[in-house]
Parts: sequence; C-alpha cells; structure tokens
Amino acid sequence: MKIKVVVTLKNGVLDPQGKAIQQTLNNMGFPEVESVRQGKYFDLEINEKDEVKAKSRAEEMCKKLLANLVIEDFKIL
Amino acid sequence: MKIKVVVTLKNGVLDPQGKAIQQTLNNMGFPEVESVRQGKYFDLEINEKDEVKAKSRAEEMCKKLLANLVIEDFKIL
Repeated sequence: MKIKVVVTLKNGVLDPQGKAIQQTLNNMGFPEVESVRQGKYFDLEINEKDEVKAKSRAEEMCKKLLANLVIEDFKIL
Repeated sequence: MKIKVVVTLKNGVLDPQGKAIQQTLNNMGFPEVESVRQGKYFDLEINEKDEVKAKSRAEEMCKKLLANLVIEDFKIL
C-alpha cells in the first residue's frame, strides 16, 4: 500500500530556503505571503496490506533514515 | 491562514533520488519498500482569512514558482 510521509523542520530551526521562496513570492506579486517553510515529501510503496503495520514500519523508516530528528519532525499522512 | 502544498514528480519522470532512498531502505532492513518517490512540501502562511481565496492564490503561486509543471504536479492540501 501507499504511505505518504512529510518531513518538516522543527519550529525554531532556521529555514533560509523557505525565506528565499517567501521573498521571491512577495516580489512576484504575492505580498500576502508572510512565511514559507519548506519540507520533504515521500510517497512510499510498501508491500504490506495491513495499514496499521505499514504505518508503523514507515514510522521506523522515518526515525532511521528519512528524518533527522535533531532538527526535523515527521508526519505519516 | 496556513496552506500546505505538495509538489511531486509526474508519473513517468525518473526519480533517481527516490530510487536511492528505496535501495537504502531495502538494505537497512526494510525489504518491503517497493518504490519511493520524493517530492517537496511547502507550509505557506498567507495573510488572507478566506480559505477559498487563499487556496486559489496558493494555486497561482504553484503555477508561477513552486512547481515546474513540465515535470511536476502540485496539490493544495
């Protein structure tokens, strides 16, 4: 089954790339954009039919490889 | 209000980074992972209280800057 994972920077961790995107959007005619935080998104195709098990395996993957828990949080969608 | 956006590669577009992550997961004790596709995730803080308007502005931002529509799709969450 398909599991979607989002990895984002923790609050308080500087995100210069997001800041650059925000400034660019402001300059492109989107002055209403107040902040942008960029993260990563993963579409995992897991050979496991039980959704609960698949999600728990995906959580392990996040902890071991996909997210750096010092500066990032992850969310299984 | 906060708008979340996901930008993913279109089906058929090669994703060598996703492939590398998949192989690494397989080697790390997750043999059930059959494919990984990596995308980008954006948390936008938009100064606009109307959700419909905010989403339509976010869609414009995707078309103009956040996504490369030749090879990428986007989704407003």
